[in-house]
Amino acid sequence: MATPIPMSTLKSGAKIPCVGLGTWEAPKGEVGNGIKSAIEAGYRHFDLAAVYGNEKECGEAFAEIFKSGIVKREDLWITSKLWNSEHRPERVLAACQKTLADLQLTYLDLYLIHWPVAHVPKDEPEQTDSRGFTKIDHVPIAATWAAMEELVAKGLVKHIGVSNFTVALLNDLLNSCKIQPEVNQIEMHPYNQQWDLVEYCQRQGIHCTAYSPLVRVGTVHGLPVNVMTDPVIGKIAEKHKKTPAQIAIRWQFQRMPNISVIPKSTKKERVIENFNVFDFALDDEDLKEIRALDRGFRVCQPIDFFGLPVFA
Amino acid sequence: MATPIPMSTLKSGAKIPCVGLGTWEAPKGEVGNGIKSAIEAGYRHFDLAAVYGNEKECGEAFAEIFKSGIVKREDLWITSKLWNSEHRPERVLAACQKTLADLQLTYLDLYLIHWPVAHVPKDEPEQTDSRGFTKIDHVPIAATWAAMEELVAKGLVKHIGVSNFTVALLNDLLNSCKIQPEVNQIEMHPYNQQWDLVEYCQRQGIHCTAYSPLVRVGTVHGLPVNVMTDPVIGKIAEKHKKTPAQIAIRWQFQRMPNISVIPKSTKKERVIENFNVFDFALDDEDLKEIRALDRGFRVCQPIDFFGLPVFA
Repeated sequence: MATPIPMSTLKSGAKIPCVGLGTWEAPKGEVGNGIKSAIEAGYRHFDLAAVYGNEKECGEAFAEIFKSGIVKREDLWITSKLWNSEHRPERVLAACQKTLADLQLTYLDLYLIHWPVAHVPKDEPEQTDSRGFTKIDHVPIAATWAAMEELVAKGLVKHIGVSNFTVALLNDLLNSCKIQPEVNQIEMHPYNQQWDLVEYCQRQGIHCTAYSPLVRVGTVHGLPVNVMTDPVIGKIAEKHKKTPAQIAIRWQFQRMPNISVIPKSTKKERVIENFNVFDFALDDEDLKEIRALDRGFRVCQPIDFFGLPVFA
Repeated sequence: MATPIPMSTLKSGAKIPCVGLGTWEAPKGEVGNGIKSAIEAGYRHFDLAAVYGNEKECGEAFAEIFKSGIVKREDLWITSKLWNSEHRPERVLAACQKTLADLQLTYLDLYLIHWPVAHVPKDEPEQTDSRGFTKIDHVPIAATWAAMEELVAKGLVKHIGVSNFTVALLNDLLNSCKIQPEVNQIEMHPYNQQWDLVEYCQRQGIHCTAYSPLVRVGTVHGLPVNVMTDPVIGKIAEKHKKTPAQIAIRWQFQRMPNISVIPKSTKKERVIENFNVFDFALDDEDLKEIRALDRGFRVCQPIDFFGLPVFA
C-alpha cells in the first residue's frame, strides 16, 4: 500500500479506517476468500454481523491470516452486531460471546445494536404475529443498551454503537446512556445521502458508517436504482479515470470527516477496485453534482421484512 | 346540528369527535371568541397546548360557555400538551396542574407529550447551546411517560398520548409503558399523508390526530404549498359544491377510521366552514386523486426551531 488508509477519529480518540469490507450477503464458501483478498489489498476494517450467518467462516479466515503473520489482531478493526432476537439484557452477553467464539477472537473493536427493533427469541413457542412477521419483543432500547455497556466493562468489546437509528432515537438514547454510542451504521449512497442525520451525528460526536454504498440492487418498486449506471456518477468517473463504484466510495469519506464506508464484495478484483480510492480526490463541482442526486431513496425497507416501517 | 359529528373510538373505548378546533397560533384576544363560535357551530373537540400561550383565555371562554349552560364539561373533548421544558418527571404534575388552572378545569380528556424532545427548564441558568438553540435536557422519554401515567392514576387526565412521534419512537415506548399512548398527533395533509405511520398506529390501536391539515402557510423553501389553491383539491371541491378546506378536512377522517383533524381558525365564518363537512362524502376517485398528491412535504421542520431534525 503506497497511500495510507485515511482514518476517522471516534469520540473516544480511537481511529477507524474509512473504508472497510462489508460481508452482508457475502455467501458462505466465498466470504473467507473475500476477507483474505481484502487483507492483501490493504483493508484493515471488517464489518460483520451474527445475522449474516457467515461469522464462523470469517473467523476461520481471520485465524489463518493471523497464523500467517501478515497482520496481527491489533492491526484490524472488526465490527459485529447484536441481532434483534437477542435484545433482552440477559441474552446480550451470550450473543456477543457466540460471535466472539465464531470469529475466534477475544474482543471486538465495535459491537452494534443491529436494528432498533427487538424480536422474540428463536426459542420462544410463538414466533410470528397474525401478519406472518416475527413478533416484536417488549424490550426497551435503553435496557439493551445498558447490557451493551456491560460488554465494554467486561473487555469483550472496545466500542459500542447502533445501526439504523434515527435522530429521534439517538436523542432519546443520549438522554439515558452511560456510554454514548460512538457509531451509527446507516444506509447511505448518492440516492439517500442523509445529510440531516449525519450532521446531527457529527454534532454529537457519533461517527456514521455507510452501508449499501453502491445501491447495486437492480430494480426496486419499478425504479431502476443503481449508482453503477448513473450518468452523473459515470461522467465524474470518466473525468478521474476511475470506476463509478470508486467515485461512490470515495465520496462517502470525502464529503464529511466522520464517515466510513463498507462496500461488500467477495470477488478479488472488486475487493481491490473498491479499495483503490485513495490516490485521487473529488473536486467541489463533483461534490455539488453528487449532492444533487439525493432523492431520499431507501434500498432497505424494513416494512418489507419486519412489517415495521422503522423510518416513518 | 342536523348531522351528528362522526366519532372515532380510542383503544380504551372512549369516543373522540373526528373534527376539533385547533388553537395553535390563535392570537390572544381572538381565541376565546373562536371557541365560542365553535361551540355554537357544533364543535365538541378542542385542541390546546401550554406553549400556545393562550390557555388562560381558552379557560375563560370555557367558563363562560359552561355558565351559560349551552354545553356541560362532559360534552366536550379537551386536549392539552406538556411542553418540552417540563419533561423532567418531577415537573410533569405541576405543568398539568398549571394547564388545568389556566383552563379552569378539573380534568383533561387527553394530555400529550408535545414533542419527543426535552429542553432544559426555563429557570435553569444556561438556556441555549452554542448554536443559539434551547439546550436538550437529558430526560428519557420513558421517564416522562411514567409521570404522564401517574396523571391518569391521579384522575387529572382521562387519556394520555404523544405528538410528533415516529414509528421507531412509538415502538420503543410501547416496549416500556404501562399505559399505551392512545393518540399520536402529527402533521398530516394531502402533501404529507404519512400512510406508513398511520397504518402502524392503526395496527397498534393508536388514534392519529392531524395538525396543519390545510397547509395554509404560503411559501416554504421557495415552494408554494397551499392545499387551498391546489388544482386537484379545487376540482374535487367544485364537484361536491364544497370549499377546498372542506375537502381537505373531510378527507382526513374519511380515509381511515382512526383519524381526527383539528383545523385552526378564530374567524367565525371559517370556524363554521371547517365544520360543515358531514353532509357529503368523497368517492373512491376523489380519494385516489388526493392520494396521488402526497409528496412527503413537511410544513413543520423542527430543525429550524429546535436545531434538531426530529424526523431524520
